[in-house]
Parts: sequence; C-alpha cells; structure tokens
Amino acid sequence: MKHTIIFLISLSISYITFAQNKLLTVKDVEVGARREFYPSYLQNLQWQGKSLNFTYQDYNTIYQQSVTNANAVTLITLAEINVALKKDKLDTLVNIPYITWENENEFHFIAENNWYAIKMPEKQVIASIKFPEEAANFKLFYSKKLAAYTLKNNVFVIGTNNIPKAITNDRNSDIVNGDIVSRNEFGINDGIFWSPTGNYIAFYRKDNSKVKNYPLVDITTREAELKNIKYPMAGMASEHISLGVYNISTNSSLFIEKDDTISEKYLTNITWSPDESSIYIQVLNRLQNHMKLNKYSVKDGSLAKTLFEEQNDKYMEPLNPLLFLNKTPGQFIYQSRRDGFNHAYLYTTEGALVSQLTSGNFEITDILLLDSNDHLFYTSTEESPIEQHTYKLNTRTGQKAKLTRDAGTHRVLVNQNSKYCIDTYSSTQVPRSINIISATGKIERNILTAQNPLKNYNMPEMQISTLKAADGKTDLYYRLIKPIDFDPNKKYPAIIYVYGGPHTQLVTNSWLGGARLWDHMMAQKGYVVLTVDSRGSSNRGLVFENIIHRQCGVTEMQDQLEGVKLLKQLNFVDMDRLGVHGWSYGGFMTLTMMVNNPGMFKTGVAGGPVTDWKYYEVMYGERYMDTPTENPVGYEKTSLMAQAKNLKGKLLIIHGAVDPTVVWQNSLDFIQECIKNQVPVDYFVYPLSEHNVRGYDRIHLMGKITDYFEDHLK
Amino acid sequence: MKHTIIFLISLSISYITFAQNKLLTVKDVEVGARREFYPSYLQNLQWQGKSLNFTYQDYNTIYQQSVTNANAVTLITLAEINVALKKDKLDTLVNIPYITWENENEFHFIAENNWYAIKMPEKQVIASIKFPEEAANFKLFYSKKLAAYTLKNNVFVIGTNNIPKAITNDRNSDIVNGDIVSRNEFGINDGIFWSPTGNYIAFYRKDNSKVKNYPLVDITTREAELKNIKYPMAGMASEHISLGVYNISTNSSLFIEKDDTISEKYLTNITWSPDESSIYIQVLNRLQNHMKLNKYSVKDGSLAKTLFEEQNDKYMEPLNPLLFLNKTPGQFIYQSRRDGFNHAYLYTTEGALVSQLTSGNFEITDILLLDSNDHLFYTSTEESPIEQHTYKLNTRTGQKAKLTRDAGTHRVLVNQNSKYCIDTYSSTQVPRSINIISATGKIERNILTAQNPLKNYNMPEMQISTLKAADGKTDLYYRLIKPIDFDPNKKYPAIIYVYGGPHTQLVTNSWLGGARLWDHMMAQKGYVVLTVDSRGSSNRGLVFENIIHRQCGVTEMQDQLEGVKLLKQLNFVDMDRLGVHGWSYGGFMTLTMMVNNPGMFKTGVAGGPVTDWKYYEVMYGERYMDTPTENPVGYEKTSLMAQAKNLKGKLLIIHGAVDPTVVWQNSLDFIQECIKNQVPVDYFVYPLSEHNVRGYDRIHLMGKITDYFEDHLK
Repeated sequence: MKHTIIFLISLSISYITFAQNKLLTVKDVEVGARREFYPSYLQNLQWQGKSLNFTYQDYNTIYQQSVTNANAVTLITLAEINVALKKDKLDTLVNIPYITWENENEFHFIAENNWYAIKMPEKQVIASIKFPEEAANFKLFYSKKLAAYTLKNNVFVIGTNNIPKAITNDRNSDIVNGDIVSRNEFGINDGIFWSPTGNYIAFYRKDNSKVKNYPLVDITTREAELKNIKYPMAGMASEHISLGVYNISTNSSLFIEKDDTISEKYLTNITWSPDESSIYIQVLNRLQNHMKLNKYSVKDGSLAKTLFEEQNDKYMEPLNPLLFLNKTPGQFIYQSRRDGFNHAYLYTTEGALVSQLTSGNFEITDILLLDSNDHLFYTSTEESPIEQHTYKLNTRTGQKAKLTRDAGTHRVLVNQNSKYCIDTYSSTQVPRSINIISATGKIERNILTAQNPLKNYNMPEMQISTLKAADGKTDLYYRLIKPIDFDPNKKYPAIIYVYGGPHTQLVTNSWLGGARLWDHMMAQKGYVVLTVDSRGSSNRGLVFENIIHRQCGVTEMQDQLEGVKLLKQLNFVDMDRLGVHGWSYGGFMTLTMMVNNPGMFKTGVAGGPVTDWKYYEVMYGERYMDTPTENPVGYEKTSLMAQAKNLKGKLLIIHGAVDPTVVWQNSLDFIQECIKNQVPVDYFVYPLSEHNVRGYDRIHLMGKITDYFEDHLK
Repeated sequence: MKHTIIFLISLSISYITFAQNKLLTVKDVEVGARREFYPSYLQNLQWQGKSLNFTYQDYNTIYQQSVTNANAVTLITLAEINVALKKDKLDTLVNIPYITWENENEFHFIAENNWYAIKMPEKQVIASIKFPEEAANFKLFYSKKLAAYTLKNNVFVIGTNNIPKAITNDRNSDIVNGDIVSRNEFGINDGIFWSPTGNYIAFYRKDNSKVKNYPLVDITTREAELKNIKYPMAGMASEHISLGVYNISTNSSLFIEKDDTISEKYLTNITWSPDESSIYIQVLNRLQNHMKLNKYSVKDGSLAKTLFEEQNDKYMEPLNPLLFLNKTPGQFIYQSRRDGFNHAYLYTTEGALVSQLTSGNFEITDILLLDSNDHLFYTSTEESPIEQHTYKLNTRTGQKAKLTRDAGTHRVLVNQNSKYCIDTYSSTQVPRSINIISATGKIERNILTAQNPLKNYNMPEMQISTLKAADGKTDLYYRLIKPIDFDPNKKYPAIIYVYGGPHTQLVTNSWLGGARLWDHMMAQKGYVVLTVDSRGSSNRGLVFENIIHRQCGVTEMQDQLEGVKLLKQLNFVDMDRLGVHGWSYGGFMTLTMMVNNPGMFKTGVAGGPVTDWKYYEVMYGERYMDTPTENPVGYEKTSLMAQAKNLKGKLLIIHGAVDPTVVWQNSLDFIQECIKNQVPVDYFVYPLSEHNVRGYDRIHLMGKITDYFEDHLK
C-alpha cells in the first residue's frame, strides 16, 4: 500500500439522462436492495468439476454454459430431478437448492434433511441419505457416500443405508461435540473434519460446564420462556476445547488435548496431513499472544512435534489452516501477519521455513486454489487497499501474475484444471461484470454485464478519497455522499455512518462504493453521508489494526474525528446538524463519539452496541482488550457507563431482545446510567431479533432510524 | 348515590394574590409532591392506647398532644431510646421507625431485624427480639412477646430468648409457607394469623409446583442472571392453597383444605373465632362466582359447617374478614355486595342472618372499629361517591350518626374508648385539616390546618362535574383542568389521563381533586387535562363495576369516548391535538382507545400496559375475563394484538423490565405486532423497574412522558 498516493474517484455514474428523477424508499433500500436494485448476477455460479463448463441456477432449472459457448443450455429441471427422486421413492423438492458439483458428471445437494447425489447426463439419483429430523452440521465425504452430522450435542455418521452410528454419546448437555467452538472466532466455521481419504472424522469437543449462562427470553410462547445461552464474558471461566478423532474402521475415538482442562487453549485451524497420519493444530493460549503449530499423531493423539511458535506482544489471530503442496510432499503453505501483513509462507513438516512466498505492504485476503502443479491462486489488496485482485503464483519459482485487470473488487472462481477462471467484479463504475479469463489474465469472453439497476433514480454524487488519520501520517479511506441536486451554497445536515471495529472495511471500490443503499437514500433526502475506515479496520495490515489493542474505541474515535474535521472544512455542511449512526461495534462507536464529545452531535442512532467490554465474550473481547483484571485502565477508559451522564443531543439506542452476540445487558445498563443521571435518551427494542434485525422487521428498523434523523436532525 | 343531582365544584382556590407566578417542574411534581408540595401533616399520627393522648413523630422525636392540650410535649427522643437500647446492649437506631402503641404505656416497633418494646414514662426496653437476617413477614403477638416470621419458604416462631422454632420445614422451594397467597387479591395482605389469645398460629401454605415460571432477568450482576417468578397466566395451572394451624403448646400443626389439590380454591379472609376453637374461611371457587363461608374445627381441621353460600353470575370478590361482636357472642359482621353495594350484615355463627346493618346506593369503604359496646365505626360514600365520610352505627338499634362534617375525603382514627376521633380530611378547597371530633361529630378542636403549599404557584382552574356514560343514564365523574392564563378564544391541546380499571377512583373531592401534580403541571404548560372515572371504576357499586365482565376495555372505552365528546363541545380544545396517557390498566386503556379509534388521538403514552388478557395472571384476570377457554370471544375482542396494525398517531409505550405484575411480554408482543405490520411505534424500558417506576428513576420517567407530549402534541 502506497500511503503517499491519494486514490480518488470522483464518481458521476453515467446514467442515461432521461427519467433520473425517481427516489428510493426505505422498502427499496431493504427489500429492493436484494431484488430489483441488486445488479444482475448468476446464482450459485460454479465450474462443473474440472470441465470447461460452468453452471448457475434458479429454483427451477440448472443452466450450463462453457468457456467457449455462451448459449445457456438447460442441464436439468426441477421436474426432471423430481422424476428421478420419485422413481426411487425419495422425498421430492419444491425448488432446487444450491447444488455442488463433485466432478464433471455428478452433483449433490442437501434438501431439508435429505442428501441427494445426481448423475449426469443420465439424470439419475446415484446416492441418497436421509438424516434424522433436528440433525445439523452435515458434512459429506462424497466418495464413500458417508456423512457425519450432529444431533443435539453428539456426533453421528451415516451411510446410504440410513442407519446412524453414534460417534459420541454425551448425556451432559454441557458437553457439545461436532459443533463450532470459540464462538466462530479464528476462522472456525465447522466442527467436523473428514480426513483426506475418509478413514477418520475429527471433531471438536466443547466442555461448557464452567461457562455462565446468559438468560435470553423467548416471548413467542404462551408464557415467555427462558432460553439460556452459554456466554463466557471477558475474564470469566471459558470453554474447554479438545479434538476427537474417530476411526471408522475400528469404530473408536481418541482425544487430542482433552486432558487439558486448565489452560483454556484455543485449538484453531484443524488440518489433516495428506497421508492421514497427523493432525496439525494452531494452538493458541487464552491470552491470544502465543501460538504453537503442533502436529499430533492420529494413532494415539500424542503431540508429535511443535513445528514452530509465533507470538506477538498484542495478539495473534491464526485464521487459516495449512495448505499442503501437491507436488512436493512434506511442505505446506502457512499464512501469518508476522511481518505486519498477511502473507503466505512455505514450511516443511519439520517446521523449517522454506521461503516467504509473498511480501509487501498488502494483505492476502483469500487463498482460492493450489493447483496440481502447486500454483497458488490468491486474492490480495496489492493493487489498492480498497480493491481485491487475484494473482497466480508459482510456489517454486516465485513467479507471479495478476489475473484480474479492471479496477474494482474481484471474486474469482478458478477452474480445477487451472486454465480458466470466472471473474466476477464490480466497482463504483461497474454494477457487475462476469467474465471468463484465462490463467494469464486475458479476458476470453464476457458472460454478463449488469445494467445499472438505479438508472432511473436520481442518485447522489459519491466521492471516495483519503484523509490523514489522527497520527497525521496514515491515510484513511473515506466515502462522502453528497445530497442530490447539490447546491454548494446551501448548508446540509450530515450523518457519519461508522463501524470502526476490526475485520470490517466499509469503503471499497465496488458498486455503490460499498455503501448500503440507505446511505444513498439519505443523500436523496438531503443529508451528506460520510464513512471513514479508521485505524482498526481491515485489509490495512497488523499495525493499522492492532493500535486498538487494550483501548477499543480510543484511536478509532480520534480518526473518526478527523472525518468531522473534514466535514467542517466543507462549506456546505451545517455542523449544528451533525448525526452519527452505527450498529454493533458501530453502535459502540456512535455512543463513544457522543459521550466523549458532548454537543458535537445533534442526533445519534446506536444499534446493538457494546457499552462496556466487560459484557463482551472471551474470544473476541480478550483479543482486543485482554481481561478486565489484566487491563483495568483500558476497560475503565473505554466503558461508556461512567460517561453516560455527559450525553448531549438526541440519542436513539436500538437492540435485539435475543441478541446472543452483544447481549442485551449492554444497552439496558447504559440507559439505566442515563436514567440515573436524568439524561434524556430514546430506546427501541426488536423483541424477536438477534444481533442484527433481519427480514421484514428490518424494514421497520430502517424506517425508524430514518424517521429519527428526519425528526431530530433535519 | 343520587344520579340526578349533578355535583359541581368550580374551583378557584383562593390563593393570596401576589407571587402566584411560579410554575412547576417535573422534579417538583415527583420529588416535591412528597416534600414541599405535600400539605403539612402529622407523621404516624395515632392514639396512645385508650388514653385521650395521641402521638406523632419525626425521625428523632415522638410528640404527644391530648384531646384537650394542644401543646406538643416531647415524649421521647431518638437519643433517649438509644440510651435505653445501649443499656441493654441492644442494637441502636439511626432514626425512630414508625411505632405502634400497644397500650397507653407501651409502644413497640421493628428496626431492621430487631423488634423492641418500650415502656413509658420509664423509657425502658421491656422486651426485644432479634430476628435472623433475611427473615420477613414479622407478626407479633404482643402480650406473649412472641413473633412469627418467615425465612425463605418456612415459618418460624421466636421469643425474647431469640431461639427460633421451626413451624414448617419444607425443603422444596415450590412450597411456600406463611407468605401472602393469591397475588394479594381478595384483600390478602398477610400470610400469618395469630389466634386471639396467642395459642395458635394459622398460616397460608402455597404449593406452586404446577405454576409456570416467568423468567425475569436481573442485569445488575456482572453477567445478567435469571430471576424466575411464579406467574400463573389466565387459564393455566395455578397455586394450591391450604391453611396450616400450629398449636404452640403441642408444637404441632394440622392443615385445612390441604388435600384438595384439584380445585384450586381460594381461601380468603381468614378469621379466628374469639374462643379460638374455629377458623372461618370464605372459600371461593377458581371461577370466582361461588363463595362458601366455612367454619373449620381447630382441633382437627375438619369442616364444621358451611354457614351459607353466596354466588353471582359474574363474579364474587370477598374482601373482608368477619368481625365478631363484643357484647353478643355468636354474632359477627359480614360484608357483601349482594344487593349491589358493599354493606354490613349481622349473622349468627350458625349462619342465620340477623339483619342488614346498612343499605342504600352507597358503599362501605372501610370498617374502622367495633367498640366494646358494639358500635360500628365505618367510612362510606353515602354523602357522595367522590367523598368519604365516617359514621357510627349502633348494631343493636340501627341508629346511625354521621361524624364527619365538611365536604371532602375523611380518614378517621377512632379512639378505642370510642369517645373521640381524630379526623384528617382534605377537599378541593382544603389542603389538609386535622381535627379532634367527638363521637357525636362535634369538632372539639383543630390540630392542624395545612397551608396551601402551592400558594406561590400559578395553578390552573380545575372543575369536577359529571357527564353521562355511554348508556345515556349513568353519571360519570370527571375532572377537567384548564390551562393557566386561560383564554376561551384560544385552541388548546388536550390530554386524557385514564385508568379505567376496577378498584381505582381518580376523581375525588380531595386536595387537587385527586389528580397528580403532573396533571396540574401539564395545564401550566398549556394543556387541557381530562380524567373520567368510567364504568368499572370503584366506589360506585357492583353493577357499575361488573359491566366490564368478560370484556375488559369495551365499556370503559365507550365511556371514555363520552369524555372525548365533552372535549369536542368545548370550543377551546383543538381536537387535532388530542392525547391520551395511562399506566397499567390505564396503559391498556390508552392502547385500546388508540387502536380502536385510529386518527382520534395524535399522541399517546401507555405505561406498563396489559395488551392481551391471556398474559395476565389467574386471580385478577379470571375474575374479570374468565379463562381464555371459557371466554374466547371476550379475549379476542379485547386483545390489542390483532388491532396493532390499526394504530395511527405517535405512541410511546413504556415498561419496567422486571415488572412482575404486567409481565414484559405484554408490551414486547404488542410492539412486535407493530413491527410486523410496519406501524411506527416508540418504546422505552426502565431496566430496573417493576410495575411502577419508582424513586429517582421516576423523575426521568415523568420527564420522558412530558417531553413526548411536548414534542408530539403541542
């Protein structure tokens, strides 16, 4: 990332000149944003195995094109699938779920609690499994036609004979097998891991018995009922994790790290060795500052070797499993931010560093494929922190080629034969473009170019640029949306839409600049809408991010205030009508900015806000804040409780009543502080909502937020 | 009650003319209303036993006057009490709690978990008991210096040796002994009943094991914690009640009605016979339409006799224990609304009616004393439904004398020798007056005449009058407060403040007309404030009240709409700026009026509202609504859920998060209906509040309500 070069897009989308007078409604920005205002796309687009064909689908039909043939062929229809299912006396479908190609001729899918595999072009069902009702976490091993799954707190394996075999049998509901652990942190999105040739099933075992319950209340029953969730708050007793390994042939299990019930280690990024003899785990201490890459023997669960250790004064956050080379046995790719940015490193299974594969002031954001010749296809921010491009790297020679050409945010599907890719991208100028590109980056043909779905709307002018962070050095990207029919001699109210926390980037060179359609609607209503990706946010490297360590909110606020300064310099912003809005970490930032700068903001809306990090969970919370005992000053400084009394201006806080992420206690405690200090504050609760208000309720939510600004900021 | 005579007070309190320009603040109407704006009074005023002296107190001193001597004597001070306590090595006091005179020379009181008895004029401690910490429900038997109490779910008895003896020993916390049962309905405010000479202790036993928990959440702990309450909702399994009788001399207990675990009867109005051989219970069926007056033998707990039964097609609500005559053994006074109004009846212990002691279209509201000659002192509404006067009735001759003279609301303390009374009263004209009156009604002397605490304030004009109910016949009392500096040619916004439910009367001939100071403050801010006591409210007889049966809200709303018609007739009310506000049943009425009359109200504030009677508890709910199974149409008709979609206008709903009376589910479900129907609605929650927002939080509450009307109605 070149800090000194200012990246600027002055965007005036080239709409057709007539009929640009329509305005968006709240329903448009919520429902419409996923329908008529979502640029055209191809649903569940994917390569058909290693072939040069690719498919996409709607609920009734699977369509096929190929690299060379742009004429869509109907591959199979819902009716045809149902004919096949009926023939085998299997449950039929009401629509086609998202399918997966196992190879060029076979696809499979989950429908309700059935798994089906279909052979083409015969259109025959070649395998099916019926899972018990209430089963979850289905994990297929295709070639053996076996599936593992969880039922309540245990793991089972099942074949096409539909007879489940229990892998675990824990009666105590505090012991949970086969489910996600560590609250989805460290990239953990699965609890079951098949071995490469399907002889073993590894699975997480989580012991929750020391973890406190947080009481959620379900009001949908005749009399409201308790729904406890296990929620370890920062510094409290946490989960104890171990890894079970089930041997299918012996029908027996052993456990890795099970005996360690004291240290509350994190077992992250479970990776099978290609030969199934070992399992690699990136074992992180509870303090999250010291990682050991451990190899365990599958034979007896013992620790075979610690390949190497890595540590950081602030925090370590291992997010990616190992990726073993195909041509060079005994070597794997490991990702680390040890040099300040996420890069790929080549290691031997003895723990010796072979080479650093990528380097520079950019981040690898996604590894797409390691092909049979050990070419690594990955996406990074090398071109620009607000763009995503795909590269092909020869892991032996280090030769690198950029595959994607046009400026913007690319998402690439590499064909397994690695000769072609499907590149889907958008930018502020391009709603969506889908192209076949060769592995040299050449565009072979365009598959789809989406029309601008807003061409008939009076869309505001949007600008993406940089400003200096509070340190005077770091460039921060911002997005400024001006009111429609803009008159530089007028004074407009302004809203800062903020997130500010790690793992999120709001300003990108993608369609609408990454903004929600709501931001654009507010500009249609006459507001200036500003978003700044302050330090702490993602894709800018470790130092940019970890400055928030032990003081969440402090640096982020300083940087957001640079955004306020920017607005002040704009003559068309009425600084007496400044608003701020955000959700989750952005709700926390909204409150932080208001209580620390009383009088600066006339109106704020904070959704699902953390209000004191002591109410947040162990895994995310302790990474950034350490524990309340280790960091009392930091917790005190960032807590909003003591500062509630400083609040000025109109503030609406919104929370989902059954939020299992930022628990309700956060906002209730904050408003109690306001009440105690006789500070006016407004509140709303979505009784059935979790951390995000979703579905139809969300239209109501966005209407409420909109009305609040219209009533109190305009 | 004479329906045809319109009672009208056109009140213009005769303030001194200068300095009437001050205006009330929200803090004044909440904190001040209990302090500087509360008309002077004498704290804990009471007769000193049978003597002609009476006492009152502050935290430091107990003062004495007598019938004839107006010079206050300092009887004893805090320091003197503490000297006596120290001498006996007892815990001292920080202030004097409310005392009770046992007789002319001995008073006693509870301070923390100590009970002390003090002898005068010696100022010596003559007895003390130290209760265990966490003990509750202390019930003294003075002459024996014994006390019963509860600790957790069991009953104990203790003497001055401070050694507790367990009366019950239930380990199962679902069994609760000695506490209030039936959620305080049927006049049940105690769970422990000493026998007349202290040989027995009767106590309620409540079996909650079939009753569902309602989950309340305590957010004051580091991680929020569950606080279940037992909350049987209408139609659900309810409490099973029995009555234990503990014999002190044999140290053993027996139970009355314990074996009946099916019918969920109510055991109400526990009354000991004077000779301790029997206990009388007014046993009510769960349907609350059939009462048996049962006599049980104390010897074996058996049913000795059902004296008589009483029933009503709608509901029975026995509220008063029996009162045995002193001179005529075997006769008692029983209160019933069987002729449409609450009156006193004389019965023999064999169940034979001797005579109806009082009759007429008025209600006995309180029985004060039955003196040694069986003169009954009682308070009734005979003079006017909005006044309370005290009468003395000769139970043998039926001769009746009215003791209180001036119009208003009287509260009378009859001396046990029955020669003198202390009469405290107020009216719209009189802030407070306290007088010694003789038992013939003659005012002997004035003890205190309170100054008008609002004399320096610009107080609005208030009018109490009647309008016709929706039936065109029944008179309803209303109170109309006009804006200050009233100009009949102006148009003012109006707020209807409503309760509407049974057991409450808002319009009375008492200071401020029974209105809260808030109503007067709103009139100072320029609002017309109207309150109508619609049918269903109290002190107007059974038919007036029970028209709401099986259709809560329906008749009340029709009557409240007559109030709206009244406002419409007043040229100075702007009907486009009509507001409505109420709490609890009044919150229910606020919502009922808004959703049934969309567009009529511009703004409403509903606090702690019932929104569907199926969410209300068995005891109160089934009395007025029967069960959901018995009365599906009534529940459907009065539920606000289906009608939420009709809501128009600005509505703020407020609820206490730990409300154990109208559970939170009510308002959460209602706003979810609003959300589902995309209807804008505002909400606020007081996180630590129960059914009423109290203490300092209440200032915030009233500020919020005030601001809401100021923002959206003015």
